[in-house]
Amino acid sequence: MNVTVRGRTEHYRTVAFDERTNSVRLIEQRLLPHEFKIVATADYRATARAIRDMVVRGAGAIGATAAYGLAQGVRAFRGTDLKKFAGHTHRVYETLEAARPTAVDPVNAMDGVLRQMARGETVAEQQSLALAAAEEFAHEDAAHCAAIGRHGAKLIRNGLRVLTHCNAGWLAFVDIGTATAPLYAAQAAGKRFHVFCDETRPRSQGATLTAWELAQQKISHEIIADNAAGHLMQRGEIDLVIVGSDRVLGRTGEVANKIGTYTKAVLAARHGIPFYVAIPLSTIDWNLKRGRDIPIEERAGEEVLGAWGVNSRGQREWVRVANPTSTARNLGFDVTPADLVTGFITPLGILQPADLWSRRRELQA
Amino acid sequence: MNVTVRGRTEHYRTVAFDERTNSVRLIEQRLLPHEFKIVATADYRATARAIRDMVVRGAGAIGATAAYGLAQGVRAFRGTDLKKFAGHTHRVYETLEAARPTAVDPVNAMDGVLRQMARGETVAEQQSLALAAAEEFAHEDAAHCAAIGRHGAKLIRNGLRVLTHCNAGWLAFVDIGTATAPLYAAQAAGKRFHVFCDETRPRSQGATLTAWELAQQKISHEIIADNAAGHLMQRGEIDLVIVGSDRVLGRTGEVANKIGTYTKAVLAARHGIPFYVAIPLSTIDWNLKRGRDIPIEERAGEEVLGAWGVNSRGQREWVRVANPTSTARNLGFDVTPADLVTGFITPLGILQPADLWSRRRELQA
Repeated sequence: MNVTVRGRTEHYRTVAFDERTNSVRLIEQRLLPHEFKIVATADYRATARAIRDMVVRGAGAIGATAAYGLAQGVRAFRGTDLKKFAGHTHRVYETLEAARPTAVDPVNAMDGVLRQMARGETVAEQQSLALAAAEEFAHEDAAHCAAIGRHGAKLIRNGLRVLTHCNAGWLAFVDIGTATAPLYAAQAAGKRFHVFCDETRPRSQGATLTAWELAQQKISHEIIADNAAGHLMQRGEIDLVIVGSDRVLGRTGEVANKIGTYTKAVLAARHGIPFYVAIPLSTIDWNLKRGRDIPIEERAGEEVLGAWGVNSRGQREWVRVANPTSTARNLGFDVTPADLVTGFITPLGILQPADLWSRRRELQA
Repeated sequence: MNVTVRGRTEHYRTVAFDERTNSVRLIEQRLLPHEFKIVATADYRATARAIRDMVVRGAGAIGATAAYGLAQGVRAFRGTDLKKFAGHTHRVYETLEAARPTAVDPVNAMDGVLRQMARGETVAEQQSLALAAAEEFAHEDAAHCAAIGRHGAKLIRNGLRVLTHCNAGWLAFVDIGTATAPLYAAQAAGKRFHVFCDETRPRSQGATLTAWELAQQKISHEIIADNAAGHLMQRGEIDLVIVGSDRVLGRTGEVANKIGTYTKAVLAARHGIPFYVAIPLSTIDWNLKRGRDIPIEERAGEEVLGAWGVNSRGQREWVRVANPTSTARNLGFDVTPADLVTGFITPLGILQPADLWSRRRELQA
């Protein structure tokens, strides 16, 4: 997407590779929305640290970062001994895998790179194939998001008021994003509409990342407290909800996503407002049988007890908001049942929840 | 309620009068939950400023503060001229009324004081009657809350998990509170239960004031993000919801309360969880015909764009959380329809929404 820094607008991907310096270039997302900075990781260990420390986050973005990190690591190998090279490749893979041990995207992305590398007969060939495979992964991620945008843009009419929750945006993928893709495609088609960004406590990714993206793309938007959407729906001020997902169950159509998503789906159903979930096909889990079995991450209470922001002197600071003698329960995700989902916006078009399982052969291909 | 400061537990009312110094004693609520401090206002103008600047907030609490402020003002009059005294009384009344021009409680409380004063035939008699009337108002406010507690405590069984939103607590009244009253009464009866406090963005009164109250009263509780209650209800971890209200329509049973209340009512109905609204009878509006006509305060976006808290050096500070080039829409209240309300916990017992209008003679008396 485009970012304007000091009056100059340029196109950036969330993750990119610099072949000349053999480095992975990342938007330092922890500084957003207060500062825009590109960091280049010097070696694969630094790339793993960037994944671990959440310089980069989001399913597609960490998948691409791991794929590039693997290519970066194997390209740094000096020599022609295939056995030593295989051992080195294994160490690189394990280092990157360990950076976010519960995430599935880095593993899937790196497995794709390994499969391509296996076609090479020399170290040099495999090194070259690794980078080509990583580039292909990143391009496909962006292409899938662009396809989601094309299909989803049909839902956006002029004057529509759209609610989104958390950040399933450009920053979570290589480019364009999922829940945001229909917005960007509709804007490119000249449509005018308004977006309400749920703040998305406790980590506030809506107020920080999604709002920043929309501001950069010059899309009309307002941040609202997570408490406010129910009232706006009741007063007829929201026409459409689009969210992303961390995991959709192929068997049931249930949607795991950032905490608060379920609440918005319940409210949308009550008010007859369409509720769409935008996903690449890699988000579909074909194995798990029921949503109750999706593990719900419980994070440190500190996130709920306070807030990160920038103080009056321009410094990033965490402030304790809550009563200091109280504790918090911090649930990361919730699960929305399929009957509250109007449709899934996928790279293959808009699907009904029941389509996922009935068309599984095609979707798994 | 009881507050423990440096290991010593004492009973405090939110608002009290010190006859010797002719001053109103208030808990400085803007410092909570980080510091507990009592301030004494030197004269009625200082009392008006304390109301205006929200040293004290909440329906019953500002009613009592205005009543005490009026008594404080008239008691400061020197002389015996009834006409001059009436002029002075009028100025005191107007100063206190102007402190929170849209609030109805200070006006109602002060009108009660004026009615009592009218029984006196001399300045001294009227001065004495003014203080007696203010004390009576404060005692009645606390007595009504105690009665809400007695009736509401019947709903609280051992092991129950209760959700509350915002602060309809002791700090919003003279003592005990409304939504919190059943909790305090149940605890006094030896029951054990757990409370989830909605953070209640953007002003976070749940995380700050309600959590502080519950911690002082040693009631088991956890703060949750406003996004989390839907998930907890879905997993069967919430058994009962109790909230307060800023205005209940006597004709329809509709409930105006802090933004986010409607969302919790919708979720509770979906999950078959009882949703109660605890109110003194003074909260009932007998005139307005429909909830849509209740004016919804829209406040400055700054509250949504950041957070007040205490930094690592112990200083109170506002930090900007949100993207600096985005704006926010900040809605203060929402309206919950009567069909989502299981019952009203009132000083006269638990009433069904339809009871309000059918028993209006009794309730207005």
